[in-house]
Formats: sequence, structure tokens, C-alpha cells
Amino acid sequence: MAIEGRSDAKKGGRIRLGMVGGGEGAFIGAVHRIASRIDDHYELVAGALSSTPEKSRRSGKALGLADDRIYDDFETMAKAEAKRPDGIEAVAIVTPNHMHAAPTYAFLKAGVHVICDKPLTTSLAEAKKMKAAVEKAGLVFALTHNYTGYPLVRRMREMAQGGELGEIRLVQVEYPQDWLTESTEKTGNKQAEWRVDPARSGAGGALGDIGTHAYNLADYVVGLELTELSADLTSFGPGRQLDDNVQILLRYENGARGSLWASQVAPGNENGLRLRVYGTKGGLHWVQAEPNHMLWSPFGKSTRIVTRGGPDSGASAARVTRVPPGHPEGYLEGFANIYSEVASAIRAAQNGKKPDKASHFPTIDDGVKGLAFIEAAVKSSKANGKWTKPAR
Amino acid sequence: MAIEGRSDAKKGGRIRLGMVGGGEGAFIGAVHRIASRIDDHYELVAGALSSTPEKSRRSGKALGLADDRIYDDFETMAKAEAKRPDGIEAVAIVTPNHMHAAPTYAFLKAGVHVICDKPLTTSLAEAKKMKAAVEKAGLVFALTHNYTGYPLVRRMREMAQGGELGEIRLVQVEYPQDWLTESTEKTGNKQAEWRVDPARSGAGGALGDIGTHAYNLADYVVGLELTELSADLTSFGPGRQLDDNVQILLRYENGARGSLWASQVAPGNENGLRLRVYGTKGGLHWVQAEPNHMLWSPFGKSTRIVTRGGPDSGASAARVTRVPPGHPEGYLEGFANIYSEVASAIRAAQNGKKPDKASHFPTIDDGVKGLAFIEAAVKSSKANGKWTKPAR
Amino acid sequence: MAIEGRSDAKKGGRIRLGMVGGGEGAFIGAVHRIASRIDDHYELVAGALSSTPEKSRRSGKALGLADDRIYDDFETMAKAEAKRPDGIEAVAIVTPNHMHAAPTYAFLKAGVHVICDKPLTTSLAEAKKMKAAVEKAGLVFALTHNYTGYPLVRRMREMAQGGELGEIRLVQVEYPQDWLTESTEKTGNKQAEWRVDPARSGAGGALGDIGTHAYNLADYVVGLELTELSADLTSFGPGRQLDDNVQILLRYENGARGSLWASQVAPGNENGLRLRVYGTKGGLHWVQAEPNHMLWSPFGKSTRIVTRGGPDSGASAARVTRVPPGHPEGYLEGFANIYSEVASAIRAAQNGKKPDKASHFPTIDDGVKGLAFIEAAVKSSKANGKWTKPAR
Amino acid sequence: MAIEGRSDAKKGGRIRLGMVGGGEGAFIGAVHRIASRIDDHYELVAGALSSTPEKSRRSGKALGLADDRIYDDFETMAKAEAKRPDGIEAVAIVTPNHMHAAPTYAFLKAGVHVICDKPLTTSLAEAKKMKAAVEKAGLVFALTHNYTGYPLVRRMREMAQGGELGEIRLVQVEYPQDWLTESTEKTGNKQAEWRVDPARSGAGGALGDIGTHAYNLADYVVGLELTELSADLTSFGPGRQLDDNVQILLRYENGARGSLWASQVAPGNENGLRLRVYGTKGGLHWVQAEPNHMLWSPFGKSTRIVTRGGPDSGASAARVTRVPPGHPEGYLEGFANIYSEVASAIRAAQNGKKPDKASHFPTIDDGVKGLAFIEAAVKSSKANGKWTKPAR
Repeated sequence: MAIEGRSDAKKGGRIRLGMVGGGEGAFIGAVHRIASRIDDHYELVAGALSSTPEKSRRSGKALGLADDRIYDDFETMAKAEAKRPDGIEAVAIVTPNHMHAAPTYAFLKAGVHVICDKPLTTSLAEAKKMKAAVEKAGLVFALTHNYTGYPLVRRMREMAQGGELGEIRLVQVEYPQDWLTESTEKTGNKQAEWRVDPARSGAGGALGDIGTHAYNLADYVVGLELTELSADLTSFGPGRQLDDNVQILLRYENGARGSLWASQVAPGNENGLRLRVYGTKGGLHWVQAEPNHMLWSPFGKSTRIVTRGGPDSGASAARVTRVPPGHPEGYLEGFANIYSEVASAIRAAQNGKKPDKASHFPTIDDGVKGLAFIEAAVKSSKANGKWTKPAR
Repeated sequence: MAIEGRSDAKKGGRIRLGMVGGGEGAFIGAVHRIASRIDDHYELVAGALSSTPEKSRRSGKALGLADDRIYDDFETMAKAEAKRPDGIEAVAIVTPNHMHAAPTYAFLKAGVHVICDKPLTTSLAEAKKMKAAVEKAGLVFALTHNYTGYPLVRRMREMAQGGELGEIRLVQVEYPQDWLTESTEKTGNKQAEWRVDPARSGAGGALGDIGTHAYNLADYVVGLELTELSADLTSFGPGRQLDDNVQILLRYENGARGSLWASQVAPGNENGLRLRVYGTKGGLHWVQAEPNHMLWSPFGKSTRIVTRGGPDSGASAARVTRVPPGHPEGYLEGFANIYSEVASAIRAAQNGKKPDKASHFPTIDDGVKGLAFIEAAVKSSKANGKWTKPAR
Repeated sequence: MAIEGRSDAKKGGRIRLGMVGGGEGAFIGAVHRIASRIDDHYELVAGALSSTPEKSRRSGKALGLADDRIYDDFETMAKAEAKRPDGIEAVAIVTPNHMHAAPTYAFLKAGVHVICDKPLTTSLAEAKKMKAAVEKAGLVFALTHNYTGYPLVRRMREMAQGGELGEIRLVQVEYPQDWLTESTEKTGNKQAEWRVDPARSGAGGALGDIGTHAYNLADYVVGLELTELSADLTSFGPGRQLDDNVQILLRYENGARGSLWASQVAPGNENGLRLRVYGTKGGLHWVQAEPNHMLWSPFGKSTRIVTRGGPDSGASAARVTRVPPGHPEGYLEGFANIYSEVASAIRAAQNGKKPDKASHFPTIDDGVKGLAFIEAAVKSSKANGKWTKPAR
Repeated sequence: MAIEGRSDAKKGGRIRLGMVGGGEGAFIGAVHRIASRIDDHYELVAGALSSTPEKSRRSGKALGLADDRIYDDFETMAKAEAKRPDGIEAVAIVTPNHMHAAPTYAFLKAGVHVICDKPLTTSLAEAKKMKAAVEKAGLVFALTHNYTGYPLVRRMREMAQGGELGEIRLVQVEYPQDWLTESTEKTGNKQAEWRVDPARSGAGGALGDIGTHAYNLADYVVGLELTELSADLTSFGPGRQLDDNVQILLRYENGARGSLWASQVAPGNENGLRLRVYGTKGGLHWVQAEPNHMLWSPFGKSTRIVTRGGPDSGASAARVTRVPPGHPEGYLEGFANIYSEVASAIRAAQNGKKPDKASHFPTIDDGVKGLAFIEAAVKSSKANGKWTKPAR
């Protein structure tokens, strides 16, 4: 509730939002739109919703966009919107990975803040170029590693980095799915098609699609530098060029160890993102599919079920909580938390203020780290698991 | 996603919505607002958000309402909005129970569709008057028994009424909470204050607040008439006039039996709404706090975990599902499903069309049934558990 | 482990045990035998294992009994064993309900301690006669309400009666099964046959078979007198004379309320015994099918997962725990705890000592209470749910 | 139940059993004794229960052994028992790892069948010597990797090796504990002391103690040769010479991948053994702490909860099941299943028969494989995770 009524974001009304990608048949576009609406900080007013102009037009109409703000391509959109007095203030880029960089450059150039889906792009080199562009533009750039928006993920971070677990020793993170168990990409499934295509996805398959989510989540929570990794990437699906299963061992700066498993060929798993963190004083266990509670095990004491909004859930989670405990919030609310924090940052930027310290949505830096992670994992796996340092 | 793009609701843009109640410090008002926004069918444009004019004004401003559409009271609002060419088309009434009827009459009179929080009102007599008023007005009236909006509740209904469980024999429903374990109402908690006050809540305490939710949920799923009940209502909190614990035995028209337990003094329960239905061919088990899966036990076979969006989740759930399985939807999305179905019904009404058959949000009839249930339970309990037939 | 090495029970070697019933095809006989062996306090040496002599003989041989100690009937066995210098010290009676009383009288007369399956017998009048006989004999009589043997049930009792939950307000107990969903008794299933037969089971069907377990468990844990009950017994199975579903509301001496649900027609439930107890200071939740942990919710604090052997599991559970936490103990170990406590009581009796105060296996008094409960429930149900006081 | 009455084992009465180790203060000795008694195939008659003669004597008396069969050391015991006409037929060796080999040689020489705790010994070289000795003796040798005795583990094996999962692609196994989070070995805890001592445990710490259990479980279920592993062993506890955390990546002969995590420093984990196996047609998920159900996810269908004794639990589990579904069996019953199968094998050997094909307790070969696994893991970790082939 705090979120809805946040006065800084309301000043000047809703943020005018555009969207690139996310037309008919897309999944993540609708998610971004709902996330933008939940706390009422945005109004979608323009879009280049598909690379097929006709589809873009049809999708735009269905979403209630004015005819003159439905664009055939993002370049035109960026230029046209920049000229309007009521032009968009922010854009959501929800295209496949290889189509994140170009729109980013175009909209930054047009003075538009950017909200971009993950992974940032298809190569570390490009990621670094994007970072330079963001820094040069001085605009807000958010990367929707949305799982960091869950209230109890905020709580995990608060506890892990606040010392409540003692010295961190172990980070076990996994993200199994099953939707590529069979050759889904050969059945006309568009989601599958581009994800198994190196030209559109980059060097990582499951690695880029969900492995980076797992990596980012762990990184966000423990805040320790990953100094080395040893990876074994596998492609089980016949003819697949990219990995569909990822096993990675992790070593952190303080000596902590860990493992990351991501898979798209594990039957029975829908979005089985799970994070366990163990330190000298206690452990935490959280599962994305049931995000409204986590287990906290202070060493030597009974494990506690910490509920979102419940007695041990802390200030950082309360900040991004809308309804009392026992009424579940989900994926869309977590996503909305990112959107709402970004809105606050955009308003701050527009007003020449510093962003809220309590806010920590993923940024261009997380995008660069994600690509460094992908490239290190690919490199390690090609070298038969050689321990490899992610580039910085 | 189907929900977001529903063309009938988009025709003519968003529905102009007003709100009565739901100002600062209220919980359910924000829930209604978010629910109205999720699928983009409404725009909040007016409100009488508090019975304290100053608070109404402050709340309206924080929500971005235009100054001339923030009203001191609902009567003024109903009249003023009725005169505007851009006046509200629907109103959400989110006040305590005793303040549902008067605004309903006022807005119906003004030609405004009504979305009203539950329970409908404080007496069966009033409920019947409201029903007459709704029928006379010929407008849409929705009661936000929001739990019926959960996709898997839709699936339970589809299975129970579609014969997949065989003849229904047992209905076990419960809704335990713990927030009134201690005398919360004496600590300045406004939510608690009015709920334990017969003047504002009516004859039922936990019975009206959550017992009616449990009753409505069971009724919605099995679709059988409750022919008799035997109730034992208790007030454990010192000095409480209304029940804070409810035990009710149930008998249905076909001979099915059941029990309903609602409590606000059961430590460890947040919103422990749970429904189990058993028939000659199988059983179902669903828990509100983890709403994205349910257990289906076809007799003689292994129990299946049916996930929202998963293989056995059916058409009626798919209709109100936004994101794929494994990414949880929650309370707000369930609530939004009601709002979106109501939007569709309002558009149909405005266009002289019949409402969508697949749509089934709770209506004035459910409100009347709820009050009949409350009064029967109170009567039975006063008669030491005499089996009592709810009035029809 | 404490259990295995208990010195008082070892004095004089193992207790010589006989068995009545429990031959081929029986289920509970084997359970009793395993339970008697687990902690090494008994040696089975004699038996009248079936009412069919040939079957008794075959069963006895399979179990390694000496030929001259396999008997055709319990009367012969009682007399013969009484004459032997190495005659049995205790007997386990594991026949259907209507065959508990006669062997009890015979063995008590022969000076043999009795371990009897539940419910005690088929009428309260008979139960009282049995109690008189036990008291006259001055021998140990144990009733195998085995669920009281689970370590965490001991812990629940310790907490509930030790004040850790404050004043008890609510007792919710249920025991659903599904094996009589269809007409199992007509398929040659012997377990089903006698359970639906009033001549062998008494006045209660599910009520006597599992309802008494649920009642006993609640009674054992909270230790409050059940002052009144209101019952609704139903027979769903075509042609069944006895109930297969039981709904009972409960009122306790201190004003606590509760409900008991037992059913044998609830698909998906195997042995779904579940107990929840709520007081002014906290709540407990335990499920028999997963007996190695329970939930403890101190009011206002996070719920804790209390594991058998873990930090909050207490002394009374530790006493009957064999292996460390995380290695599950189950039904047979719980049953064995009863057997081992009985062994200790028998040795104490033989040595003229008082029984161990920490020991509390169910006795003849629990048997009488069980029949009083059954008869009160049947009476209440016949009177359409009239609140009825169990006889004392 | 089938287990209790198995006629082959009963012929000739109970097997006379001796025990080496397992005296006062030991944990696993009592477990072996209970396991030996549950199905009534053994009678403990002799023991060298401690390396401290006085303690051995005291322990033996407490267990009811005859004075002349309580020995000061295993050599004396082996010789003395060999001379008795009623000498032991089998011996259970339950000492720390470094004390498995010598008693094995002594008892094999004495013609006594051996049941030995895991891991087999402290080096692969010794393991191979033991194997040669077992083969030369022609006696039964069982290694108590007890988790293979759980009914649903049998079912997992049956399904994985019977093709119901299709081609196996992934094996995820983990065994976290938390008891060495702090320096337990410095607090007088004997269990901890020897486990962190290379002289008594061998080259592996957590690796040998629980990592071998995890490895053995996976091996037992999937039946695929582990061709390579890459290990990262860590010692977090200050001053510890042996690992207390183990991360291992796995590659199997058919191209399947996997990971194994074992840890004794993960707060909140008691005995968190968990196995997940995924193939082209489906997945399985089983957790040791709740062993009476597992999840089976046939690809594209809803996940099923398979219960021990329930509809999908199969023949191999039924064979080692005692009580119906819903009444939990646990750790001791799983352990007893190993003991009972060994009894059957011993009787077969004594009678010149072949062992039961349906029986598959772990043998000397599993012991050798376990040591090969330990040595490969240690070697790989020393070579910074070099993929290493376990010796064969």
C-alpha cells in the first residue's frame, strides 16, 4: 500500500511509457504492462509492438493506443516520440535478447529512460557498450531481473548482508524447468524457437534464459563477488546448438562455495527457482513458486516459517508489500515492485534528486555482470570445466 | 493475457470508476484499486474516500483524483457524477458492512453500476431490499467474494459441477485467522474495531467477516443448496459481543454433509481458507495461501498436483490465467478476475448485450444468500445448535 | 535408545507374550508383534491366532511358536498357559471389537496382563464390566490407542498441559480415510467386512474404528473433560448399517470448543489423522502421516517447525525417541513406545513397584471413555444433533 | 508383512548374531539391533561392543548377553564363537571406518557372515583386499547403505531402470546436514570426533560419511556407471583436516549429467538426503526425511504423489512394505529391510541355494565403488576439479 500512494512518483502524474516488442503471442510484454499498472505509476501510450508492422498495429489497437503512436519500428518511434511534447518518458524493451541493444541506443539518444528485459544482450562486448551509453546519457536503465522484486528476496538480502547468517559459506541456487524436454522448438512454439537460436539468444541457452536469473538472484542476495566458476553445459535436445542444462560450481571472494543448476529438460519443474544460503549462524531457503514464505534456520534453533508480512519479515520486505500475510502476492507483484522502484528513480532523476537508497532494482551493471557470467560459463565448459574468472 | 486484451471491455475505453470508502489507513480500498487496474479495464476518477471530509480530500489527492471529483460524502458524489457527461459508470463501495446499503441505493438511482464489498449488509431484510433495488435499476451489481476469482477455484467448480467427482458427499471448508487472539480491538486497530462492533458489522463477527467467504466459496464450487445448518458460535475475546469462532455443521440438498469452521483466534493462521470436496469418484483439496496448485485424488489412483496453467487445469481456469504455470498468481489477480468479469458485464449491459456465460462473478443473489446464512447460523446457535434452514 | 536399554524391563529377561487373533490375513496382529520386538522387551511364545483352528496352527508355525503353545481357542490357551511355569506373562488381544471382552476376562483370571486393541469393546456397559474386572485383578491393562505413542504427540501434550499454549480454546481433530468410498465390504475384504457389521463392531462404524482414535488423541493431548457433543453420523455406502462419516462438535469443561471429523469415504485420504490445538498463547498442528515434525505457532511470532529430536522437542518426546532428527521414525515405533511402556509397567507390577510416572500409555479408563464417547455420539445423532453429555 | 513371515528365513529359527562396536554412547549400534529384530530373523547373542573392555561388559549386560559371550575384543570373539556349536552365524560391524577391515577378516576366517557399516573402509586398496577376502570365503557380505532399503527407493530404481523415465539425463542428489556448523568435535561429541579424524575416517570427511550415501543412492537407483567426476571439497570448520562440504559434478556412461552436494555445515538441515532423477519421459523426486511419498512427473502430465503402498507404488516396494499407506514407515524399517534381505541370503547360502533375485542389498562391490568414488573425488579436488575417472 505504501507503494501505491508513494508521493514522489505521483508528482506530475503517471510516467508516459512506450513499449518495444510485446505484441500478439508474446508472453513477457503483457507481464511488463501489468507490472507497470499495478501501482499506477505508468500509462502506456506508444509502442512498436512487433517487427511485423501489421501485427504491431493490431496489437496496439487492442491495447488502446492512439493510432499515431503505434509505430512500425522502434527507430521511428524513438524519433517521433522525442519530438512530441507529450512523448514517452520511459520505454520497455521486451524483445528477444539480440534486439535489446539497438533500441536501447535509440531511446537513450532520444532522452528516454529504459526498462529492458534480461539478459541484457548477446555478448559481453555489447553489454559494455550499452553501459557506456547509459552512463553517457545519464538516464535510468533498469534490467528486469524481476525475482529480486519479491518481498522475501529483499528479506533474504537484508539478512544475508546484515550479518544475521554470520559469514556466508554456501550458496545453492537452482532453476529447473521442463518445457524443452521434448523438441518444443520444432512445434511452432515461438518462445522456444528464439531461445534455442544462438543468433537471437547469444551464447547461452538455458544459461542465458534462466541461468542468469539464478546467478543474479544469488548475487543480489549475498552480495559477494563470484571469483571463479567451473561449468558443464549440455545440450540434450537433439540438434540443439545451445545448452539446455547447466551445472556450475561457484567460488566466492570470501571462500564461500556454491552450485548453480539450471535446466529446461527436468520433467515436473515449471519454474523451480530455489535459493538456499548458509552461513555460520544460520540458513535460508526460498522457493519462487511459493514466494510468500521462506524458511529461516538460526543454527541450533528450530526452523521458522517466515511469511511475507509476518513477524520476522523485516523492513525491506514491508516496503514492497501490498497485502497482509496469508493473502498471497505473486510474480506480477514482484515484477511491479521493480517497475515502481524504477518510477521513483525516474521521478527523482527528472527532479534532480538522488534515487531512494532503499530502492535496489537491477541496473546496467547487473546486465554486464550477467554477460560476464554467461561468457565465463561458456568458456569454462569449453575448457572442460576449467575454473574461470568472470571478466570485470 | 486473454484477460488483458478482451475486446468487449476495451470498447469505449476504460470504465470510469468511483470509490466510496478506501481512504488512508484502509486496507481493502487499495486492493480494489489494484484489482481494477491489473487488466486495464477501469480508471478511478472520483471518490468519497472517507467519512471525514479532510481525510477524503487528502486521500483523493494522493491517488491523483481531480479536485472537483473528491467528495465529502457519497450522496453528493452520486448526484454530482450523475450530472457530468464524463461521470462515473461504476462505483466500488468499500466501507464497513453497515455502510453498503445507502450508497448502493444512491448510486443505483444515479444509474451507476455497483461493485460492493462483502458481506452485502447487516441484515437479511436489508439485503432483500437491496436486491429489489438492483433488479429495479437493471444495473450490474457485483459482490467481491474475491476467492471465487482464483483460477483453481474455477477449476474446482468445473470439476465438482461437471461430474468429475461423482456425487458430492462431503464439503469441508475452514477459514482460520489469528489476529483477534488478543484484544486487538482495544489497541486502536481500526480494522478490528468495526469488525467486533455489531452496529457496524451486523449480527456476525468472524461469521460475517470470513465465515461468509467460506460459505460462499463452498457454495460456488459445489452449487448445491444448503438445506440446514447447526451452529455453535463463540466469543472468546473478553467482552466481545460478536462471535470470534464459528463451528457449523452442514447438510446439503442431495444428502451431502459438511462442516465449516471460521475463527479469528487460532494462532499461526493468517488467512487459512481451505476447501476440501469429496464425491463418489474423487476428492479435491485447495488452500488459499498457496493458490497455484490443488490436489486432485481420483478414487483408487494417485493424487495429482494440479497446477494453475498445468495439464489438468481446464478451460475455466485458463480463462482467468495471466502467466504460465510456475510463476505464481495471487490474491490481487484473483480479485482482478472479478473486476475484469464485471467490466465485461458492464460493457455488455451498456451495449444491450447479454453477459458472457463463462463469466460468473458473485452477484446480489450471493449477497442475499450470505445474509440468510448469517442469520440462520446466529439463530441456530441461539437455539443451542438446532438444525436451521437458511431463509430463501 | 534409552528405550532399548531400559534396565527395569530387562530384569528377568523378555516378557513372555501370547496373542489372541492376528493370524494369516490379519493386519494389526503383525503390527503388534513388530511393536513388541522393536525394543526387545517381549518374546512371543504362545497364540490362539485365529478362530479357525487350522489357520491358527498354520499361523503359529509360521511365526515359530512351539507346537504345544499354538492353541485352538483362547479359553484353552488361558488355562494351559496359567499352569505352565514358563507360561505367558502378558497377552495381546487383536481380534475384532466384539471379541475383546471374553479373552480379557479369561486372561485376567489366569493372572495374565492384557494388551488390547481398540475400541475396548462394543458397549459402554461391557466396558464398565471390563474395568471392574481389571481393577479386581490388579493387573496391567493397556489399550493400544497407538497414536499417543508418537514422540511429538507426547510433546503436544506436554505443551498443552504445561501451559505453553495458554488457556486452550480450540481443538480441531480429524481422521479421514477413503477405503470405504466404494463398497469394499462386498469384495471379500475381511477388514471391511467386520468393520461395517454392527454385530462385530458395535454401534459405531467409522466412529468406533477411527473416530475413537481421533477423540482419544485430542483427549490425551489437551487433558480436558469433554462435557458435551453434537453429532451427525452418516452412512453413504449403499446398504451400510453403520456410519462411514462422522461430524461432531465438541465442548470442553473450560469452555473450549472443537470439532471432530472422521470419514472413510473421503478420496485421497489414507490415514489423514490431524490435530490442531489453539490456546490464548499459541497453536500446534500435527499430522500423523508426517509425524516427525509439527508446527508450533507462539502467538505473534513466526511459526516454528519442531522436529522430533530437534531443539524444541522437549523431554517427554526425547524419552520415546530412538534415532536423531532427520531420520524418520514412524507408525511402528510409535506403537512400540506403547509396548515398551507397558513392559515397564508389567515389570514394576511384578516387582511390587509403582509404575513410571513419565509413562502414560492408554488404559482401561481410556477404553471406557471411548465407549462413552461412541454411545453419546450415536445418541446425539439419533436425536438430530442434540448436545449430549458422555456418560461417566 | 510378507517380510515377517518369510518362510526361508524362519527355517532353523533366528540367525545367531554377534556385534562388534555399538556399545554405550554409540548411535548406529542400536539402529542395527533394532533393524535386526523388526522382522524377527536374528537374535543377538554375542558382542565385543567397545574397545574398552569394561564398557563392552557393561553394554553387553544391559543388552542381556550371556556373560561368556561378552568379549573384550573382536579377535577373541571370532575365535571363541567359531568353536561353539551355537556360535554366531553373522556379525554386525558397527565401528568407525578404520575398524571395519580387521574384524571382517577375522570373522570371515571364522566362517561368519558379515554385515558391515559404511563406508567400507578407509582406502580403496583395503577395500579391494576385503573384496578378495569375501570372495575367497564365499560368505555373505552386506554393507549397510540403508537408504536403499526404503520402499520408494526400490520403486525409483524399478522405474528408472525399467524405462518408465525414458533415457536418464539428469541425476541431482544432495545430502546436507548441519551438525558440524560449529566445532562440535571440540565439545566432547564422540560422533564428531572420529568423523573429522583422518586416521579413523579415511580421506573423506562429509564425503565419506554422507557423500558416499548420496553417491550410493543415486547409483542404486539409476544403475548407470559414473564415468567422471569433478569435485570441490572444502573444510569450513576451523582447523578441520577433512572436508565438511562437498560439491561434485557427475557424468554418466550414457551422457547423463548430475551433481552431488553433501554438507555438514548447512544450518537447518538434519538429514536432508534428496534424490531427483530426470529422463526423457519423466522425473522423480524423493526426500529421505519424508520417505513415504515421492513425486512422479510423467512429462506433459500432472505430477503424481506416489505413496508407499499406494496405487503407483509397484511390486518392488510392496515386497518391503509392512503397513498400509498413510501409516508411515521410517528409517528403522528401511534399515530392517536390508537386514531381512541379508537373513534370506544367509539362509539361502547355508542351504546351498541361490539368493532371491528380487533382493538387492548393498554388497562388497558397493563398498569398493564407494571407496573408488571417495578417492576420485579427493584426487579431483586436489587437482582443482579436474574431471577424474573413479578406479574400477
